[in-house]
Amino acid sequence: MERADANVISGLAHAGVATVHEAQGRTGLMHSSLRPIYGGARIAGSAVTVLMPPGDNWVMHVAIEQLREGDLLIAAPTSPCEDGYFGDLLATSAKAHGCRGLIIDAGVRDVRDLTAMGFPVWSRAIYAQGTVKETLGSVNVPVVCGGALVNPGDVVVADDDGICVVPRANASHTLEKAKEREAREDEKRERLAAGELGLDIYDMRGRLAQKGLKYV
Amino acid sequence: MERADANVISGLAHAGVATVHEAQGRTGLMHSSLRPIYGGARIAGSAVTVLMPPGDNWVMHVAIEQLREGDLLIAAPTSPCEDGYFGDLLATSAKAHGCRGLIIDAGVRDVRDLTAMGFPVWSRAIYAQGTVKETLGSVNVPVVCGGALVNPGDVVVADDDGICVVPRANASHTLEKAKEREAREDEKRERLAAGELGLDIYDMRGRLAQKGLKYV
Amino acid sequence: MERADANVISGLAHAGVATVHEAQGRTGLMHSSLRPIYGGARIAGSAVTVLMPPGDNWVMHVAIEQLREGDLLIAAPTSPCEDGYFGDLLATSAKAHGCRGLIIDAGVRDVRDLTAMGFPVWSRAIYAQGTVKETLGSVNVPVVCGGALVNPGDVVVADDDGICVVPRANASHTLEKAKEREAREDEKRERLAAGELGLDIYDMRGRLAQKGLKYV
Amino acid sequence: MERADANVISGLAHAGVATVHEAQGRTGLMHSSLRPIYGGARIAGSAVTVLMPPGDNWVMHVAIEQLREGDLLIAAPTSPCEDGYFGDLLATSAKAHGCRGLIIDAGVRDVRDLTAMGFPVWSRAIYAQGTVKETLGSVNVPVVCGGALVNPGDVVVADDDGICVVPRANASHTLEKAKEREAREDEKRERLAAGELGLDIYDMRGRLAQKGLKYV
Amino acid sequence: MERADANVISGLAHAGVATVHEAQGRTGLMHSSLRPIYGGARIAGSAVTVLMPPGDNWVMHVAIEQLREGDLLIAAPTSPCEDGYFGDLLATSAKAHGCRGLIIDAGVRDVRDLTAMGFPVWSRAIYAQGTVKETLGSVNVPVVCGGALVNPGDVVVADDDGICVVPRANASHTLEKAKEREAREDEKRERLAAGELGLDIYDMRGRLAQKGLKYV
Amino acid sequence: MERADANVISGLAHAGVATVHEAQGRTGLMHSSLRPIYGGARIAGSAVTVLMPPGDNWVMHVAIEQLREGDLLIAAPTSPCEDGYFGDLLATSAKAHGCRGLIIDAGVRDVRDLTAMGFPVWSRAIYAQGTVKETLGSVNVPVVCGGALVNPGDVVVADDDGICVVPRANASHTLEKAKEREAREDEKRERLAAGELGLDIYDMRGRLAQKGLKYV
Repeated sequence: MERADANVISGLAHAGVATVHEAQGRTGLMHSSLRPIYGGARIAGSAVTVLMPPGDNWVMHVAIEQLREGDLLIAAPTSPCEDGYFGDLLATSAKAHGCRGLIIDAGVRDVRDLTAMGFPVWSRAIYAQGTVKETLGSVNVPVVCGGALVNPGDVVVADDDGICVVPRANASHTLEKAKEREAREDEKRERLAAGELGLDIYDMRGRLAQKGLKYV
Repeated sequence: MERADANVISGLAHAGVATVHEAQGRTGLMHSSLRPIYGGARIAGSAVTVLMPPGDNWVMHVAIEQLREGDLLIAAPTSPCEDGYFGDLLATSAKAHGCRGLIIDAGVRDVRDLTAMGFPVWSRAIYAQGTVKETLGSVNVPVVCGGALVNPGDVVVADDDGICVVPRANASHTLEKAKEREAREDEKRERLAAGELGLDIYDMRGRLAQKGLKYV
Repeated sequence: MERADANVISGLAHAGVATVHEAQGRTGLMHSSLRPIYGGARIAGSAVTVLMPPGDNWVMHVAIEQLREGDLLIAAPTSPCEDGYFGDLLATSAKAHGCRGLIIDAGVRDVRDLTAMGFPVWSRAIYAQGTVKETLGSVNVPVVCGGALVNPGDVVVADDDGICVVPRANASHTLEKAKEREAREDEKRERLAAGELGLDIYDMRGRLAQKGLKYV
Repeated sequence: MERADANVISGLAHAGVATVHEAQGRTGLMHSSLRPIYGGARIAGSAVTVLMPPGDNWVMHVAIEQLREGDLLIAAPTSPCEDGYFGDLLATSAKAHGCRGLIIDAGVRDVRDLTAMGFPVWSRAIYAQGTVKETLGSVNVPVVCGGALVNPGDVVVADDDGICVVPRANASHTLEKAKEREAREDEKRERLAAGELGLDIYDMRGRLAQKGLKYV
Repeated sequence: MERADANVISGLAHAGVATVHEAQGRTGLMHSSLRPIYGGARIAGSAVTVLMPPGDNWVMHVAIEQLREGDLLIAAPTSPCEDGYFGDLLATSAKAHGCRGLIIDAGVRDVRDLTAMGFPVWSRAIYAQGTVKETLGSVNVPVVCGGALVNPGDVVVADDDGICVVPRANASHTLEKAKEREAREDEKRERLAAGELGLDIYDMRGRLAQKGLKYV
Repeated sequence: MERADANVISGLAHAGVATVHEAQGRTGLMHSSLRPIYGGARIAGSAVTVLMPPGDNWVMHVAIEQLREGDLLIAAPTSPCEDGYFGDLLATSAKAHGCRGLIIDAGVRDVRDLTAMGFPVWSRAIYAQGTVKETLGSVNVPVVCGGALVNPGDVVVADDDGICVVPRANASHTLEKAKEREAREDEKRERLAAGELGLDIYDMRGRLAQKGLKYV
């Protein structure tokens, strides 16, 4: 599996989900139903993808062997399931193999321990339901997670706003765009804070009038 | 737009949503699906209402120009949508124009920044999805937000329990009722804390028996 | 109502929901839609069950009289309802009668006060909607709460991972199993933290190959 | 309660929900979660509104007395509830008083009988759960039903596409606009059926190119 | 497994879900989210219960061996799952062993074939997702299905209004009550059809006035 | 855009969704939340994909120009939206260009007309809400629709059980597997109808006993 450049990845983490999503043309967002188990984390990493049968987390152990420093686990079930596929033991193992966090379109458990460990997880549910180890899944295949397509090695950015997937080949270009956007926003933020209106800064009044805006 | 008296508004904020809702005869509550992006805020303000097309936040800029010190933005889409209509730039601008917070029956983003700014938001979703600026919306028209009717200038109270709308004309009367309720509750709280039963304080045993309550 | 041994109950609280659920053969979990109003609480207690009509909390007052030190209120509506059946006054009363917390398959309100009091609640919704006192309900009958059957006197364990019901007769046996599980996990956690793979610790490679796992 | 002209009402029924909704500027639609209990009905009538406590249908009997020939019952609970507020007995009574159908933001039961009677209902749920008669509600007050504001006497149109509210004062104007729209659509339908493209009929190619459409 | 009397069971089927639910004191209803795959079926039978792992239908084959003429399969997953556990082959087998239908708190598939066979199913979802045969489940244990407790041998009634569980021991008594209710309703239906108001038939005006009903 | 062989496509339609899904290794299913607007349709066709902004159906007109005889429109919004993107005019146009039906992860309207035309649609919602024509979308790009990845030219099969995507390159192989499966099932169906148990036909008793199945 090829990975994006480590500096690019950390640049994307710094930009955050909303900016990265805008920077790559408003694509790559996962559904808003995947939420962080604790607030304040902002990470990015290379996707090790996991496709899991409902109620069966066997393949997680296979996935962990594929992890390298700076990777994220991106896991989706083959049919909707919110069982607790992942808990503190798997997190301990994943962390020992360099994993920065988990994005899972299913459930997670031991969230108190995960929070104490500082191991960030974005999940569809918090649910203690145990899983079995009977059926194979797949590692590092393309998966649809939270409604977004993820290929192994894609950069995934996650923070309090959600999760955004950046195809590996676009990572560096997206970072550039993100930095440009941040620069533009800094200048605008200052003017807006001083009380200037967006209507004026973005010169919207003419176009709004043309569209038919009326003040009554 | 007429606004309620500032002291009445701050009195309603102090009473909080549950008390205000009771004080005006159990009306005006928004759906429980609108939640605060961070805990602990308790605010009230005059409603500047915003009706927005799905996925289009252009009208937000028009709304911000209408804000006065102590107002709240109350925003609803014309059809269900959870896109991130509002982020840190709009919050910066709204705040500069006196806005105390946002209630939105849709999505919001940049929640880390909004939290750092202390700009409270109650929303249906946290979602980084960007919006366009192509279609007009309306400002200061009656809107249904979170299932409740809001007219411009109504007082809106929001805290960890949710959001309650108080029609402007009722604001002062509702505050009186809220204060009476608080006074009554203080006395009861003390008796309940001392171990007296509600069954006795509220003299319920007779009526319960009459309805058929049996102890087995 | 018979109750389980107090030491067993506190042992189960210490083990936590995920472990207890596993220890009794993966049964007894409530739905993941019931969530704590604040993080970090981990409790167990004997169930005083409450069956309530939609939008009517009269029976709560009857239930509180049945509470003994160390009990939990386990409340479910007779049809789906998310009204705020319970707030700070009832919590004050319940606490004065020894109650450790509330599990409710409906709504709760005054969550700021409940948090300040340290009275933990797991609920389906936070909703200020008031309830009436017109129709009888039942106390200490079997109820289905969050999809799980609860009999009066069952031990209920709740933490950030959710809620698990332990039938009273199984409580002591389940605690033993939970302790065994914890002991086993401690040893594994250490090996996993040191970088050993689950594939090796659990000796999975052979069985995975037999099932058809291929590395490509 | 004033009602719109009977011919206008039947004209709106004939136009149907999608056309009426467009004709009044894309306003007035109820949520898509309200669905007909059987297919094929297309009705319109004057709204007799009903506001009901959760799980309590007492006020339905009060509402039925207010019905006149050609009216519809528009019913919403004061907090979310899907109990079966209405069944074949109430339908028999409502029908005897001229009612053409029911729109209810809650549950309904006896749907087999209602279907056999040809009494159309749009509801959030089909649910046999019984209700009590203990708490008053309100009749002919403004209600928010399915997310739309309904005033007594408004015209409500319902068919397989959903439900649309037309304020009484706009009914006649909306009907005119609906007829114009239908006339325009008839001509377009013919051209489209003959294979002409919307791109050409609506002359979109230039504007699309200007917006940046590229064929690759 | 003991079963209720066949005549009682067919009497309950004839009464239908809404009446049976009322006749046993408004208990036993499953959630409204379980819906029939086709309209018009009205059945009752003795419950053969099935508890299934998520995504694994192996135990269905074990359950079918336990079926006797007139039984129903009542199936629930151990954690939420909407996979298609049951299709036309299992229906063919179940039917050959006397099964009248299936209630499943999960998914079903081959609904076109099931409809053609006249094999009625009430399910949470229609979903073609296949299941595995790796993990044991349980047959004829108490299960919570659609939020209702079902013991093996209980009578389950299902029609277009939903599903209602009648504990075996209550079946005969519930049937009596249902018949009484039907008799009462026949008389009322006639009076209501003739235009008499429920307000008068049930003598509600006095009690409503006493509660504060006002006509304005 | 390349398309699969027409005979292969019609063979897949004949096999139906459940069989095709199994035949390609239980992959390609869309979510169960996409449902047909009327029962009984069973179709397959080549995907012309459409990616649409929320509340904006402009790109539909662009997509229709790309249709060839035997194609299906597969449409998804860039963020969750249930507006009525498609109605009878677009259906008339699409049909005139050879389109067999629409799969849309959003809303549809004019369902009465679409049903009368025999134009099948699978959608997330039925909703009359109109859309605008202001923002570009994309045609014939990879889209995630109903949680499944669809590439232009993929074969999509849809019936009462849902929707399944077959990558174009696999179509012919999947059809072979589907036919084999059907042949095997025919033989089993006969034996099951005659009362043989799956336990015996599939020789499950030994493996079940080994897993620990006990009869009590």
